[in-house]
Amino acid sequence: MLDGELQHKMPIVTFLSDFGTSDGFAAAMKGVVLDLCPGVQIVDATHEIAPGDIEAAAWTLSQYWRLYPAGTVHLAVVDPGVGGARQPMALVADQRYVVAPNNGLVTHVVRAAASWCCVEVAEAAYMRPEPSSTFHGRDIFAPAAAHLAGGLPLERLGPPLEEPCLLEMEPPERREREIRGRVVHVDRFGNLITDIPGGWVDEMWRFEVAGHDLGSRRRTYSDVGAGELLVVIGSAGTVEIAARDSSAAKVLGAARGDPVVAKRRLGEAG
Amino acid sequence: MLDGELQHKMPIVTFLSDFGTSDGFAAAMKGVVLDLCPGVQIVDATHEIAPGDIEAAAWTLSQYWRLYPAGTVHLAVVDPGVGGARQPMALVADQRYVVAPNNGLVTHVVRAAASWCCVEVAEAAYMRPEPSSTFHGRDIFAPAAAHLAGGLPLERLGPPLEEPCLLEMEPPERREREIRGRVVHVDRFGNLITDIPGGWVDEMWRFEVAGHDLGSRRRTYSDVGAGELLVVIGSAGTVEIAARDSSAAKVLGAARGDPVVAKRRLGEAG
Amino acid sequence: MLDGELQHKMPIVTFLSDFGTSDGFAAAMKGVVLDLCPGVQIVDATHEIAPGDIEAAAWTLSQYWRLYPAGTVHLAVVDPGVGGARQPMALVADQRYVVAPNNGLVTHVVRAAASWCCVEVAEAAYMRPEPSSTFHGRDIFAPAAAHLAGGLPLERLGPPLEEPCLLEMEPPERREREIRGRVVHVDRFGNLITDIPGGWVDEMWRFEVAGHDLGSRRRTYSDVGAGELLVVIGSAGTVEIAARDSSAAKVLGAARGDPVVAKRRLGEAG
Repeated sequence: MLDGELQHKMPIVTFLSDFGTSDGFAAAMKGVVLDLCPGVQIVDATHEIAPGDIEAAAWTLSQYWRLYPAGTVHLAVVDPGVGGARQPMALVADQRYVVAPNNGLVTHVVRAAASWCCVEVAEAAYMRPEPSSTFHGRDIFAPAAAHLAGGLPLERLGPPLEEPCLLEMEPPERREREIRGRVVHVDRFGNLITDIPGGWVDEMWRFEVAGHDLGSRRRTYSDVGAGELLVVIGSAGTVEIAARDSSAAKVLGAARGDPVVAKRRLGEAG
Repeated sequence: MLDGELQHKMPIVTFLSDFGTSDGFAAAMKGVVLDLCPGVQIVDATHEIAPGDIEAAAWTLSQYWRLYPAGTVHLAVVDPGVGGARQPMALVADQRYVVAPNNGLVTHVVRAAASWCCVEVAEAAYMRPEPSSTFHGRDIFAPAAAHLAGGLPLERLGPPLEEPCLLEMEPPERREREIRGRVVHVDRFGNLITDIPGGWVDEMWRFEVAGHDLGSRRRTYSDVGAGELLVVIGSAGTVEIAARDSSAAKVLGAARGDPVVAKRRLGEAG
Repeated sequence: MLDGELQHKMPIVTFLSDFGTSDGFAAAMKGVVLDLCPGVQIVDATHEIAPGDIEAAAWTLSQYWRLYPAGTVHLAVVDPGVGGARQPMALVADQRYVVAPNNGLVTHVVRAAASWCCVEVAEAAYMRPEPSSTFHGRDIFAPAAAHLAGGLPLERLGPPLEEPCLLEMEPPERREREIRGRVVHVDRFGNLITDIPGGWVDEMWRFEVAGHDLGSRRRTYSDVGAGELLVVIGSAGTVEIAARDSSAAKVLGAARGDPVVAKRRLGEAG
C-alpha cells in the first residue's frame, strides 16, 4: 500500500473548486469535512476556477499538490458532468491524496508522480446518506476527503480504477534548431506560461509568439524596461512570456493554446 | 439551556460577510477572534455577498450552517444599518450559534431550526473597548463570536430577544393542478433556485418560467444536451432550473424574485 | 531581542498578496508554510490586492496586523520588483512579525509601532533550494514566515536592515481654520478613507471634496437619508466620507490621492 505509512497527526484538506464562495456551496463542503474529521485544517486553494474549466483546474492543482506535507488530502471539484457517467475518484500520488471527479482533473498529478494508485469512490458507507444528483461535492467528495484525512485506507473507498481519465495534451516538440510548444496557462498578471521545459533552452534560442520576436531568455522581470516583453523561466520551471509591470496576454493578444516557437540562432552550435 | 452541553474542544468560527477581502476588514475581524479565542479554527464561508444584500446572505447561510459540528459559531455580517437602531444579536439553533446584526440575516436558520434561543448582544464586557460606530463587525460581532467559541454561555451576552427580525417571504402555493413559487437565489452557474419543495413535484408537473415551457423534472444536468434548459431537484432539496453547461439566468433573462409556475398535466391523477 | 519572549504554542501565519487564488500561487505558498511549520494555522487576509499596488497593500496590512495575537507572522507579498534589486525583509514590530519585500509594504506598520527591528532575509538555509527568480513568495518569503512561526529568532534570517524602504506620504496639515488631507484608500463600499485624524475635528469643521460641501461630521451612516453623503470618523480612527447605502467614490467621482479640505466655521472659537 502506498498510503499505509502516512501520518495523520495534523490532517490537512486543501480545497479547489469553480464554485465561487457567495452561494455557500464551498462552505457547505467545508462543514462536512470538519464534521467528519475533527481537528482537520482546511486550506482554501481556490474557488475561482472559471466554471467548468477542467483544464485550468488541472494546471492550478499541479502548482501546489506536492508542496504540502505527506498525507495531505487535496479536494478538487470542477465537475460539469456531475450526476452523469463520470465516476468520483480518489488517488494517492507520492504520498499526497487527491479526491476529484474522474474527468481529467488529475492529469498533471498522475503525469508528474513517481508512483500513484487510484480508486473509484463507490462505497456508500463513506458518502452522505442519499447523495443529491447535482452536488456530489458535498455528498460524495467532501466525505471521501474527510475519511482519508482521518486515516481511512484508500482502498476502502471503492474498487481500483486502472486508467483514470487524462486530458489529451500535445507535448512540446524539440528539434535541433526549433522548439514548438504552447501556452498552457495565462495567469492573473497576464503572464503566458508554456509547456516548454526551461532546461531545453539557453540564450541561443529566440522566441516567437503571435508574430512577435521576443528575443532570448532573461533572468527575471526587471531585466527589461516597464511594459517591455520578455522571456523567462517561470516558477513552474517552464518558459514563460511576460511583460514587465504589464500583461503579456493583452500586449500580444494571446490566449491558452496559442503556439510558441523558439529558433536556435544560425551558425552557433549547441 | 440549549447550549449548556456543547463541547468546545476544537472551536470553529465560520465567517460570512459582504466585505470583500481587499480592504482588510475581514482580516481585522479574524485577528480579533484569534486573539480572544486561542486555538479556534476560522473558516471563511464567503466575503463576496453583494454589498448590503441581506436576502442573499440569509440564503447562503442557510446552505451550510447545520452541516458544521455542534458548537460551531457562524459569524455573519452584512450590516447596512450599522450604527443605527438594529441590535447586534446571537442565537443558538440546533446546537450551532449564529452571531449577526438583527436585520433578517438569520431568517432561514430560525425557520428551519427545531429549537432556537436568541439574545441581544449588549454586554460591554464582551465587546472591544469603545466600539466604533461604523465597524461593529470588528468591535462587537467578532468578540461575541470568539467568546461563544471559547465556551461563554449565550445568555451572558445580553438580554433575551424574543422576536428576531425575519425577512418577509411569500411561501410557495400548492393547489391540485398548479404550484406557484419564486426564484429565491441565482447561483454562480446561473442556476435558478426556487422555493418549491422537491417533494411537491413528480414527472407529471410541467414548469414555466418567463413564458418558457421547461418540461417536467429530470434527474440531473446531463439528462439534456449542452445548452438546453431543464428542471431538477437541486442540492437544497427544492426545484432548480438550470441550463446544461450554460446559465439558465442568462438564457431566460430571469432574476431573483421571478415567479415559477408548475402545472399538472390534464387527465392524469396524482 | 524584541521577539525572544514570544510564545509559539499555536503559531499563526496570515497571508496578503496580489496573486488572486486561481493560479495556485497562493496555494503553493501555503503548502510551503504548512510543510515547514507543522500545526501552524494559516489565515487568508486577502489575495485580491490590485496587481502591483504596494500602496493599497500597505494600507490594508495596517488595518489588521496589530489585532492578531503576539507572535503572529504576517506574510505580505506584493512584489512587482521580484528578482530585481529590492531585498526580501522580515521585521518584528510590537511583538508581531511581518515578512515582505522591502518595497514600502511595511510603511504603516513601522510608523505605527512603538518599537521595531528589521532584517534582510538573506540566509539560504531558510530558503527553498535554488530559489526561482520570479516567485520569491514560494521560495523565500513563505519559508521565512514558516521558520519565524516555528520559533526561529528573527536575526537568524540575515543581517540587520537599518532603514527599510518606506512610501513617501505627505502628512495631513492642520492650521487654525483649515485642515488639508487626502483620500488614502477607497474601500469596497466606495467609502473614501482619509488621513485626517478623527481627533482633529469636531462638529465645527465643514468638509469639502471635489467641490462638494459635505457638512460637518456625523456619528454614523444612518444619520442621513439613503444615498446622501456624510462625514464620519471611520473604523481606522480617521475621517471618512461615505454615502449611505451607496458609493461616495462614485457620487463624487473621487479616487485615492484626492485632496480633502476641512474649514472651521467663522466666528466660533475652538
